[in-house]
Formats: sequence, C-alpha cells, structure tokens
Amino acid sequence: MPYFVAVYDVNQKRVGKMLKLFRRYLTWIQNSVFEGELTPAQFKSLQTEADQLMQEGDGVVFYQLRDERYMDRIALGKEKAEKSRFL
Amino acid sequence: MPYFVAVYDVNQKRVGKMLKLFRRYLTWIQNSVFEGELTPAQFKSLQTEADQLMQEGDGVVFYQLRDERYMDRIALGKEKAEKSRFL
Repeated sequence: MPYFVAVYDVNQKRVGKMLKLFRRYLTWIQNSVFEGELTPAQFKSLQTEADQLMQEGDGVVFYQLRDERYMDRIALGKEKAEKSRFL
Repeated sequence: MPYFVAVYDVNQKRVGKMLKLFRRYLTWIQNSVFEGELTPAQFKSLQTEADQLMQEGDGVVFYQLRDERYMDRIALGKEKAEKSRFL
C-alpha cells in the first residue's frame, strides 16, 4: 500500500483542526509531520477534507512512496511519536 | 545520490537561523520543508550544524530516500518553491 509523509503549514487558528484531521488518517511523528499507509480512496478523502479546512496562505505537502521500505527517518531532538526508527 | 526531505519544528526565535542553514544545503519547498540530494558527508555536516542550533523542544526530521524517483510530491495550497511536481 502506498506510504505517505504529510506536512502541513497552516495558520495557528487552524492547527488544532488540522491535527485532528490528520490524526484520523495518519500517525503523528512530530508537530506538523505525519506518516502512514493510505489507500487511494483514503488519500483522496484526506486531501478533500484538508482542502476544505485550508484558507489563504495555508499549505500541505504530501510525499507518496511506493513502499515504506524506500525511506528511512532520522530525527534530531524531540521525537514525540510512538513509532521511531533510527538509522 | 541519496535524496532527502527535511522538516524542522523549532521555536520561533530560531526559525530564521534554521531557514538560513537548511537553504545552504537543500531546496526550500514550503515553510519548514526542504528537499535535495546530499552526500553522506554533507548530511552529517547538516545534522551537526542543526544540532548546534537546536535547543530544548526543537525538532528536525529527515527522510532519506535511495533515490528521488521513489517518491512523488503532492502539494495543496501555496507552493512557494521554485520546483514543483504534481501527480
């Protein structure tokens, strides 16, 4: 299943709603960074919901990987998420 | 050459310094998101410099990919960077 890394950058006023939305679909890694597997339908649905919350100046970036195995995560400083994998 | 996606999440006071540091190594994508190729030596050097700037509560996440071809970037909203690639 495709694996996603998602980062949002939105006005402080909408951070709470975005956090709640992204947590419904993905695993929280650090502040505005999330990861997880999504089916094409789930990804489309997340994009639609994010789009509805976003306003002028807000942005979201998704990185889609064919498989989680194609990447390694290296974290410096706080690692808030429950899952962790270091090189 | 390994391809990196980097996201930092630091106190507002250090955002300017982090931005300046990351721009020396990578391409700016959106607010705190950067991308680019790094040799192992460059990556080590960026990690060391970031570590020196970071303080309590700050965090940086790097995603290392074997090759840029293994991922696709999908951006919603503003796309500030000069490079852009949509699905």
